[in-house]
Amino acid sequence: MEFSSKLLENAVYEMSQLPGIGKRTALRLVLHLLKQPEERTHYLSNALMKLKSEVNFCKSCHNISDTEICEICGNPKRDESLVCVVEDIRDVMAIENTSQYNGLYHVLGGKISPMEGVGPQDLNIGSLVNRVKEGTVKELIFALSSTMEGDTTNFYIYRQLEGLEITTSTIARGISVGDELEYADEVTLGRSILNRIPFESSMKAN
Amino acid sequence: MEFSSKLLENAVYEMSQLPGIGKRTALRLVLHLLKQPEERTHYLSNALMKLKSEVNFCKSCHNISDTEICEICGNPKRDESLVCVVEDIRDVMAIENTSQYNGLYHVLGGKISPMEGVGPQDLNIGSLVNRVKEGTVKELIFALSSTMEGDTTNFYIYRQLEGLEITTSTIARGISVGDELEYADEVTLGRSILNRIPFESSMKAN
Repeated sequence: MEFSSKLLENAVYEMSQLPGIGKRTALRLVLHLLKQPEERTHYLSNALMKLKSEVNFCKSCHNISDTEICEICGNPKRDESLVCVVEDIRDVMAIENTSQYNGLYHVLGGKISPMEGVGPQDLNIGSLVNRVKEGTVKELIFALSSTMEGDTTNFYIYRQLEGLEITTSTIARGISVGDELEYADEVTLGRSILNRIPFESSMKAN
Repeated sequence: MEFSSKLLENAVYEMSQLPGIGKRTALRLVLHLLKQPEERTHYLSNALMKLKSEVNFCKSCHNISDTEICEICGNPKRDESLVCVVEDIRDVMAIENTSQYNGLYHVLGGKISPMEGVGPQDLNIGSLVNRVKEGTVKELIFALSSTMEGDTTNFYIYRQLEGLEITTSTIARGISVGDELEYADEVTLGRSILNRIPFESSMKAN
């Protein structure tokens, strides 16, 4: 792609460094900003710079927060004995949206992945073990994605907790509510049969 | 979407104002920037701000340029008598990539579209008419998209040029090179038959 302006080329290059944004999309976004009033570019730049320089992660659960302890960890109404282990702050948002969970979280910041050079020391696993050692946590719920990396991470944490008094569970895998069986993949369908639950408890969930 | 941080919410909001970027994508992009070293955010912000504040449009053809007159208009090897009328600077880049055109351009900055509130006065049409009046231009090539708005814009410019000594042409519409006839849409195929060209000239083009 040949540019008629170095300034434009530079802006497109920087924009195209974002994940999933190719050169063409980057050009479209940059030209859009050029057509907008100058404030739009200011607001975007300032918001990104401010976030990057002032961002704070909760001391306890590592969720993004504007305060030292995030709103969830600081809420006395939440069940301190329950901690849900997730990969990313997007998972916290997804679970919070369900309004079905009243415990706390622990954001690992990724999964163990030797292929991508992510080891246990790169994740917030040490602080999770320390939280458990403090004694208030009674149950850990693993809510990582069910991939090889997710399973490895679950198992690594499980081994680190050996000897500590803690219950561990994983979120239920199965057919999505409202999905038809014939379109479900075999692994999910197979698991949902193996891990069937008493009909009475399924009635309570509705 | 509930955010645990105002800073994050603000950054995601500003990012999602870009065209084709929804809230979820914006969140993904912002979280990616958060994981990267601080320079990345600096570079992106600076490149956008610098472009917006220092951007310059060629005095003659309105293409984005770092200099008062763009490289194309300032190149003495290009044919001054030929001007290709395009909507957007992306069209200039697309035509330049073909290496088949040696004339100049005129970037309108859009198409006449009453639906979107874009009238002739919002486009660089006046300066095009002035360029033609100066007398060096012998032929205008309309290369706008062949939509209702594109056709309206072509016709509007055509009417403005009445009485001036100028040849006008439009780029050829037809079946894409390498495409099979059975998959072509009827309008394109129909036009390509009506506007057939002598076999000898098609041989020259290859």
